Amino acid sequence: MFTLLKKEKTTKARLGLIKTDHGTIESPFFMPVGTNGTVKSLRFEDLESIGAQLMLANTYHLYLRPGCDILKEAGGLHGLSGWTKPILTDSGGYQVFSLSKLRKITDDGVKFRSHLDGSPLYFTPEKVMEIEQIIGSDMVMPLDECAPYPCDRKQAEGSVRRTTDWARRSKEHFLKLGMNKNQHLFGIVQGATYQDLREQSAKELLELDFEGYAIGGVSVGEPVEEMFKALDWVMPLLPEDRPRYFMGIGLPDQIVKAVGEGIDMFDCVLPTRFGRHATAFTRKGRKILRNAQFVNDPGPIDETCDCQVCRRYSRAYIRHLANLSEITGLTLITYHNLYFYVNLMKEIRTAIQEDRYEDFQNTFLKEYGSELYAV
Amino acid sequence: MFTLLKKEKTTKARLGLIKTDHGTIESPFFMPVGTNGTVKSLRFEDLESIGAQLMLANTYHLYLRPGCDILKEAGGLHGLSGWTKPILTDSGGYQVFSLSKLRKITDDGVKFRSHLDGSPLYFTPEKVMEIEQIIGSDMVMPLDECAPYPCDRKQAEGSVRRTTDWARRSKEHFLKLGMNKNQHLFGIVQGATYQDLREQSAKELLELDFEGYAIGGVSVGEPVEEMFKALDWVMPLLPEDRPRYFMGIGLPDQIVKAVGEGIDMFDCVLPTRFGRHATAFTRKGRKILRNAQFVNDPGPIDETCDCQVCRRYSRAYIRHLANLSEITGLTLITYHNLYFYVNLMKEIRTAIQEDRYEDFQNTFLKEYGSELYAV
Repeated sequence: MFTLLKKEKTTKARLGLIKTDHGTIESPFFMPVGTNGTVKSLRFEDLESIGAQLMLANTYHLYLRPGCDILKEAGGLHGLSGWTKPILTDSGGYQVFSLSKLRKITDDGVKFRSHLDGSPLYFTPEKVMEIEQIIGSDMVMPLDECAPYPCDRKQAEGSVRRTTDWARRSKEHFLKLGMNKNQHLFGIVQGATYQDLREQSAKELLELDFEGYAIGGVSVGEPVEEMFKALDWVMPLLPEDRPRYFMGIGLPDQIVKAVGEGIDMFDCVLPTRFGRHATAFTRKGRKILRNAQFVNDPGPIDETCDCQVCRRYSRAYIRHLANLSEITGLTLITYHNLYFYVNLMKEIRTAIQEDRYEDFQNTFLKEYGSELYAV
Repeated sequence: MFTLLKKEKTTKARLGLIKTDHGTIESPFFMPVGTNGTVKSLRFEDLESIGAQLMLANTYHLYLRPGCDILKEAGGLHGLSGWTKPILTDSGGYQVFSLSKLRKITDDGVKFRSHLDGSPLYFTPEKVMEIEQIIGSDMVMPLDECAPYPCDRKQAEGSVRRTTDWARRSKEHFLKLGMNKNQHLFGIVQGATYQDLREQSAKELLELDFEGYAIGGVSVGEPVEEMFKALDWVMPLLPEDRPRYFMGIGLPDQIVKAVGEGIDMFDCVLPTRFGRHATAFTRKGRKILRNAQFVNDPGPIDETCDCQVCRRYSRAYIRHLANLSEITGLTLITYHNLYFYVNLMKEIRTAIQEDRYEDFQNTFLKEYGSELYAV
């Protein structure tokens, strides 16, 4: 699935290609989050004009609605939605832990209640594989136990043990179902904030041999230093010839930093969620567009941006729309934000190609006003 | 402003052109409602790809937000929004009567409270002209007193008397402000459901000589026969060389019928409002896309439609999105609905051009399942 094209000279950043049945993706890349099979407030035409290479969807949410019967009938999420580019699916493990108030984890799987109607549900690693086969995602995340933050050592040990065991069962079922013909399975490294557990988790997964490796249990409320510590510990253990996915990361400066550590794949709800809350990403940090300072501002959201929105709409107009909670205003900001992320990844790839990633990273972090600058 | 190009042979339908500083509009036409200076959930790119010739905005709402200071600073609504095509503004009279719980009408004007924060406001015909000058709309509606339904004779008489007086004061102030240099003022016929009052209102306005005539106080809850009675009474009195605007009308079959009576201009919130409530317009009537019948339906919203949405998205997918209240789903339906209206007007103009409007009308009303068929 993955081809390593180049290792950058000034950092650990790398260029690669991921090949799937729905197209080839250039890495490093950002995945717009389309939980329910749609990126909130945008259309596929928008994702295409933005240059998004793929979409992330969520197994847990799609399992609840529209459900497996409708997905199967339609020929998976590609068939139902008409989206033709690659799809990666989250296992839903994170949602089981974050959305469900009542849940009971055993070594076999997890019992929980639907966050919609409280109906009892049961996920096992095998069942999640079966759902993801029906969804037909190109890249498949297995059920894992996402440790919270903070997390005591005992809980972290249990999470690693179960995550490894579930990863093994996932892979066995993945092969048994013949999903390996056109889908690609990842392993997810857990271990919370414990170096030895992170290392143990990575090593155990490596023995099982996955097509890609994700670092999970991050962006769960921990300080940003902890997030990057997990990278420091795990990255040296991961093989060069597999893509590395930093799950749920992150803010633009975190992405820029993590690329420099050798990460290839990112996803994050913030560009779309902030868009719906009228907050825009720019090269100089975030702008809250409801603020009164923009009432008469004829400039675009970001002077350095050449997206459709910045080429046409003023801050004053967008502020007017956002102030009235007009859907159009929130859609415009979401479009810009996602363009900002996708275009940032393009610039990142160019900087890697030209062996000037250290400079790019420093310049970006400084201009952005990042706490990660010179860290 | 208006050029009558053609009178159709089989009905009273007509073709015309309206010339404004922001472009020429072919009539009959439909105006997408952009109350706050945006058509809800859509972007200007959408209006352009749909083929919308102009936008309607609302004086009352724009007066409240963003307010005259911001509008003046930006160079009107065109300047603030960047919309380059013509704009027609409602006077806000209808909103004063429909949204404000506390209001007091005198011959001088109307005192009311903002529906947003209850602050006291006062509109006179002169003040409304001044606001519309700041908005910079191409077509300008004066303050009128919109009679409700039902409406007793005494109230209807008062509404006609005041509407005429306010129309006179509006025109005087319009000229005094020099708005006639680049804006066009309409008169609004009132008179509720009383033939003599409708006729009186029309005649009094004709003496004042406006650039266009609107039939107001319709679509306020009356049966559809009453709505068309107002047309029967008023249309014979209106001069051929001025455009005729049936305010707030309407459903597709009502528009098709009213064009046959000689109406040139329409506006209605329903294509966009129904869109946000997951109801689509099709040639065979309305479809509620949340309905379970569509869960596995791979067809487009309307098989006869060639809009962007119908060319790409299935009912099953749109139903899935609508069922989750995903903004994207509601936006897709809104886009289709507005395309349906705008494209219907194109077909109407072609049928008029080819002198086959009676046939077109009958075929449309029958297929649509309209109560107006063969009326």
